[in-house]
Amino acid sequence: MNNQPYIILVQPQLAENVGMTARAMMNCGLYNLCLVSPREDHLSAKAVAAASGAEEILQNARLYKTTREAVAGLQMVYATTARPRNQIKTVHTAEHAAAEINRLIKTEKTNIGILFGPERTGLHNDDICLADAVIEIPLNPRHCSLNLSQAVLLVGYEWYKHQIEAQEVRFVTNTTVPASREMLLSFLDFLEKELAGHPGFKDEEKRPHMQINLRNIFTRNRLTEQEINTLFGIVKYLSHK
Amino acid sequence: MNNQPYIILVQPQLAENVGMTARAMMNCGLYNLCLVSPREDHLSAKAVAAASGAEEILQNARLYKTTREAVAGLQMVYATTARPRNQIKTVHTAEHAAAEINRLIKTEKTNIGILFGPERTGLHNDDICLADAVIEIPLNPRHCSLNLSQAVLLVGYEWYKHQIEAQEVRFVTNTTVPASREMLLSFLDFLEKELAGHPGFKDEEKRPHMQINLRNIFTRNRLTEQEINTLFGIVKYLSHK
Repeated sequence: MNNQPYIILVQPQLAENVGMTARAMMNCGLYNLCLVSPREDHLSAKAVAAASGAEEILQNARLYKTTREAVAGLQMVYATTARPRNQIKTVHTAEHAAAEINRLIKTEKTNIGILFGPERTGLHNDDICLADAVIEIPLNPRHCSLNLSQAVLLVGYEWYKHQIEAQEVRFVTNTTVPASREMLLSFLDFLEKELAGHPGFKDEEKRPHMQINLRNIFTRNRLTEQEINTLFGIVKYLSHK
Repeated sequence: MNNQPYIILVQPQLAENVGMTARAMMNCGLYNLCLVSPREDHLSAKAVAAASGAEEILQNARLYKTTREAVAGLQMVYATTARPRNQIKTVHTAEHAAAEINRLIKTEKTNIGILFGPERTGLHNDDICLADAVIEIPLNPRHCSLNLSQAVLLVGYEWYKHQIEAQEVRFVTNTTVPASREMLLSFLDFLEKELAGHPGFKDEEKRPHMQINLRNIFTRNRLTEQEINTLFGIVKYLSHK
């Protein structure tokens, strides 16, 4: 796929981690996996089991002997590392890099790669110096060593978020719809009538306060039509049992 | 730590996943782990190895028999799920939820929990209905099943990123405070007892559905202690008038 970055794992050690990386990539809609001299077979049973449904990414992975070969066809390369180690590079947060990657791919059709180092050591200086810029994931400085697939997941997640439209809060109602204010008020009128003898309603001084309290309780949770019908049924039942 | 949400794993199956979750939590500066009936020992060698430096989180984990016990002392509960399955809840993205959680903790000192379901099935309806709202992580719809520790990582990562952001919206409660989940559930127990003869509760087939509907109505609006007392009074009055 040309409209997305290449995920390049440099000398990954464990087949299981390569499989889990494929799964994380698929979670984020990323399909281009490149492997530089993996130590274990990326199509082993372990790898496929860890991929958990993302085998196609393992099967389509491109293999390279060196990082240099892997980045040869790219126009922009990012290195992920928690330790830029004396290299003079621009350092992006994952979020900022995601925005830049999407912009570059969309407007300039740039071929982009993101390098991830071996599990134990992370990327070596020799690999980092092949990259244009560094991606740093903002994490707890007390404990920022990430599992390989989790590093890929966080970078991929930021990339995916930038691809989709902002949709921050939704209200799931499925088959029923939020009730009209009129329906809600009819229920509240009914409830208050049923409560006419309640100490909070009988006492004229207390009544306005009680009414406001009650209305607040039921106008804060966006009741659906079905729920208001349920509440009608409950009050009727309690009132006449 | 009181200034951060509780990560609640409901019936996690594999000790390794609990260990990896601890590691992911530490990556995000999260230290409060709660386990509801884990199938395997969360302090086993496998778990500790997977925690990779985050054993202290495993050692300090709180154990509960039921989800209800785990959320009893909380005032706000989120359920993470890819499938809200006919439950009427507000659905937040992880990013939006992170902002809300930070705001609630800072301005109202609210005790907050985030529920994560078992690896194979995710959260059951019985657990989801204990939550005020749902967190959905925006991911590739073709492949949105996440490893448990990776779901925790993404939610934790958003939380970590949002910690420094100032927010201006508040929940005005005046002299009363948001009720604990236990107080809310005691009210719901009482209400359900009073409704024992109601057609929706008498019929054993209908009862679970009715119970979930009812619990959803009252766990969505962040009831205060005073409001729950009002509701107790109303139900008692209706029931015995």
